[in-house]
Amino acid sequence: MTHSPNLNPLAPQRFAEALHALRERAPLVQCLTNIVVANFTANVLLAAGCAPAMVDNAQEAEGFAAISAGVLVNLGTPYQETAQAMRVAVRGAENAHVPWVLDPVAAGAVPWRTSIALELLAGHSPTIVRGNGSEILALTGGQGGKGVESTAGADQAVEAAVRLARKHRMVVAVSGAVDQLTDGERLVRIANGHPLLTRVTGAGCALGALMAGFAAVTDDALLAAAAATALLTVAADAAAKQCHGPGSFAVALIDQLYALAPEALAAHLKLA
Amino acid sequence: MTHSPNLNPLAPQRFAEALHALRERAPLVQCLTNIVVANFTANVLLAAGCAPAMVDNAQEAEGFAAISAGVLVNLGTPYQETAQAMRVAVRGAENAHVPWVLDPVAAGAVPWRTSIALELLAGHSPTIVRGNGSEILALTGGQGGKGVESTAGADQAVEAAVRLARKHRMVVAVSGAVDQLTDGERLVRIANGHPLLTRVTGAGCALGALMAGFAAVTDDALLAAAAATALLTVAADAAAKQCHGPGSFAVALIDQLYALAPEALAAHLKLA
Amino acid sequence: MTHSPNLNPLAPQRFAEALHALRERAPLVQCLTNIVVANFTANVLLAAGCAPAMVDNAQEAEGFAAISAGVLVNLGTPYQETAQAMRVAVRGAENAHVPWVLDPVAAGAVPWRTSIALELLAGHSPTIVRGNGSEILALTGGQGGKGVESTAGADQAVEAAVRLARKHRMVVAVSGAVDQLTDGERLVRIANGHPLLTRVTGAGCALGALMAGFAAVTDDALLAAAAATALLTVAADAAAKQCHGPGSFAVALIDQLYALAPEALAAHLKLA
Repeated sequence: MTHSPNLNPLAPQRFAEALHALRERAPLVQCLTNIVVANFTANVLLAAGCAPAMVDNAQEAEGFAAISAGVLVNLGTPYQETAQAMRVAVRGAENAHVPWVLDPVAAGAVPWRTSIALELLAGHSPTIVRGNGSEILALTGGQGGKGVESTAGADQAVEAAVRLARKHRMVVAVSGAVDQLTDGERLVRIANGHPLLTRVTGAGCALGALMAGFAAVTDDALLAAAAATALLTVAADAAAKQCHGPGSFAVALIDQLYALAPEALAAHLKLA
Repeated sequence: MTHSPNLNPLAPQRFAEALHALRERAPLVQCLTNIVVANFTANVLLAAGCAPAMVDNAQEAEGFAAISAGVLVNLGTPYQETAQAMRVAVRGAENAHVPWVLDPVAAGAVPWRTSIALELLAGHSPTIVRGNGSEILALTGGQGGKGVESTAGADQAVEAAVRLARKHRMVVAVSGAVDQLTDGERLVRIANGHPLLTRVTGAGCALGALMAGFAAVTDDALLAAAAATALLTVAADAAAKQCHGPGSFAVALIDQLYALAPEALAAHLKLA
Repeated sequence: MTHSPNLNPLAPQRFAEALHALRERAPLVQCLTNIVVANFTANVLLAAGCAPAMVDNAQEAEGFAAISAGVLVNLGTPYQETAQAMRVAVRGAENAHVPWVLDPVAAGAVPWRTSIALELLAGHSPTIVRGNGSEILALTGGQGGKGVESTAGADQAVEAAVRLARKHRMVVAVSGAVDQLTDGERLVRIANGHPLLTRVTGAGCALGALMAGFAAVTDDALLAAAAATALLTVAADAAAKQCHGPGSFAVALIDQLYALAPEALAAHLKLA
C-alpha cells in the first residue's frame, strides 16, 4: 500500500454514542442470512436494541430493503431462491441509499458462493464487508480456508483488507483474536473478545447483522463496523466470566448485549 | 359492530382442563413455519407436551396435515416451495377436519405474504388467526406495521378482530401487552406476560403453534387460543423472575412451560 | 438371523481414545440437515470439538463432501433443492471415500422422504444409518411411526437393524431408552441418557452429526457410532443433574459436551 492507514482514530466516546443511538432508534435490519444462525442473529439484534426482519425471498427482498434501515447479506447457506433474493435486496438497498453489509461466509472454500460474493462486489458497493482472514483474502483472489473456519490470520489479511477497502470505497472488517477494521485510510484494532466466541455457531454472522444495525444510525461506516465489533466482544468478555461452557456462554452473551450500557462499552473497549 | 361480545366468558378452570388434556394427549402438531423460529417453536411445543413435526415441503404437507392433530401455517419466511406446501397443507387439514392456525407474520408490511394470507383466508376457514394489531388490521384491508413489529395497539385492532371473526367464523387472537381473543361473540382479555417476550424472537410464532396444539384437544377454538396464550404468558411471568436478560429468559421460559401445572395456570391467570 | 451378534465387544478405553482423537483432529463435518436443528447441531459439533459446515445446496454439496472429513445426510425437512444436494453430496463422499451418515427422519411416516432414504440406500453405502425403531423398521419395509416420534421400541427394531447392517455392510444405530448399535456381527448396547433428551428437538439429529465426526477419526464405524452415542448420553446424564427443565438441560448439555474428558466418558459409560 502506498501509505499506512491512521491507527485507532475513533475515540471510545464515539462507540458509546453509537450504541446510544442504536438503542434510541431501534433500526429495522433486514437479514438475508443462513438457516443455521437466523435465530441467533435475530436474538442478538433484539438484545442489542434493533428490530430484525428476515425477509429473504425473491418476491419481497427488494421492496423490503428499500424500507429497511440496514441490510445484511450473508452467504452461509445460499439456495437458488435466496441467492436471487440477495441480488434484488442489494439493488433495493442501493437505490434507496440504505447501508448494506456483505458477509461472504466460506468464500474461497466453496465455489458457488464465492462467485456470488464477487458478483455482489463487482456491480455494487457494500457499506461494509465482514469476514475472517481467509474470506477477505478470497475476495482479492487469495486462497480460501478450511470450510467456514479461517486458516489465514487477521494480521496476514489486513493488507488485503486495506487494498479492498480502497478499491471499493467501503469498510472491510477482518475478524480474529484481534479484530481489524479499515476504510482504507483508517485502521481500528480491537482486542476484546474470548475464544468461546469460536465455539458458538453464528457469532461472526451475528456480528455482520449488528454492523448493518449500527450502519443505520451513523454515517461513519468504520465507526458502525467498529461499534458492532466492540459491542459483541465486550459483551463476550463479560459473558465468559459467568459461564460454564459454550452453551451457557451463548445465553450470557445475549443477556450482556441487552444489559451493556454505552458508558460501559467505552470503558471496557481495548483498542490494540 | 352490532353488539359487543361477551367479556371473559371462560372460567380459569377450563384453562387448567385444557392444559391437562394437552399433556395427556400429546397432540401431533405439524408446523409450516419460518427458518428463524423453527427450533424455538419445536422446543416450546415439546416443553408444553406436544409432538411437533416440521413437515413443510409440497410433496408431503397435504398428506401429513391429514394425519396431524393440529396444523400451523406461519408466513415468517415464505419461499416458492414452502408457500405451495402451505396451500396443500391447508387443503389436507380441512379435508380431514384437522384444526389449523394462520399466523400472517408481517402481513400488511410486505406484499407477497399478504397476498398469500388473503388467499388462504379467502378460500378456507382457519380455526384461529393469530397476529399483532397491525397484522390483523392488514387482513381487513388496514395498513401494516414496521416490518414484523406491530405499530397498531391491541386495543385499536380488537374491533377489526371481532369483525374478521364474525365474517370467517373463526377465532382471532391479537397479541399485545394485553392479549385479546374473540370468536365474534365472546372476547377474552389476558393480562399476563412480560416485555421480555418482545425481545426473544419467535415468542409470537411459538404461540401460534401452541394454539394449534390446544385446538387439537378442545372443540372450543376460543378456549384453545386462550389457553395457549395463558400458558405462554403465565410461564413468561415466572421466567422473568428468574432471568438476567432475554437469553436466560428464553431458557427459563422453556423450563416453565414444562413445569407449569394446570392448577398453577388457572391460579396465576389474569383475565383483564 | 442366522447367528447372534457379539454383545458389547468394545472396551470403554476405546471410547476414550475416539474422543481424544476427535478433539485432536477437529474433523470438518458437512451437514445437510433440517432447518429445525441446524443451529443446535452446529453447536453440538463445535462443543464436542468438530468443525461443522452446513453446505446443503446442489451447486456446492458434491465438491464440499469430497473435502470434508465426514458427511451427515438428515431428512428432517427435505426440499427439492436440498434433496438434490443430498444426492450429489453422497456421490461426492463416496467417490472421495469420505464416511457419511444417513438419518432417515420420519421415514415410514411420510412418503417422499422415505423414497429418498430408500434411494440413497439402494445405490450407495452409508457408513452409518441412525434412527429410532420406527425409522429403521421403515427402511426394511416395516410400518412407520407417529410423525418424528418412534412407536417401535428399540428392542423390536434390533433384529431389523442386524439384518439391515448385514445386507448393506454398514452400521445401524437404533436410538431408545437403551441405544443399540450393530454392524451385523457385533452389537453395542448403551444405557446412558435421560428422558429430557426426548424433550429437546434435535438431540437425535445432532447425534447423527456426531457420528459423522467420529467416523472421520476412526476406521471402526461401530466404534464411531457408539462413541458418538456415549458422548451425547453421558453428557446428558451430567446435564440432567444441573437443570430445571428442557431449556436449561439443552444449555447444560452443550456445556457438558465441551467439558467431558475422555477418561470421564469411559468411566461413566454404561454398556447394558
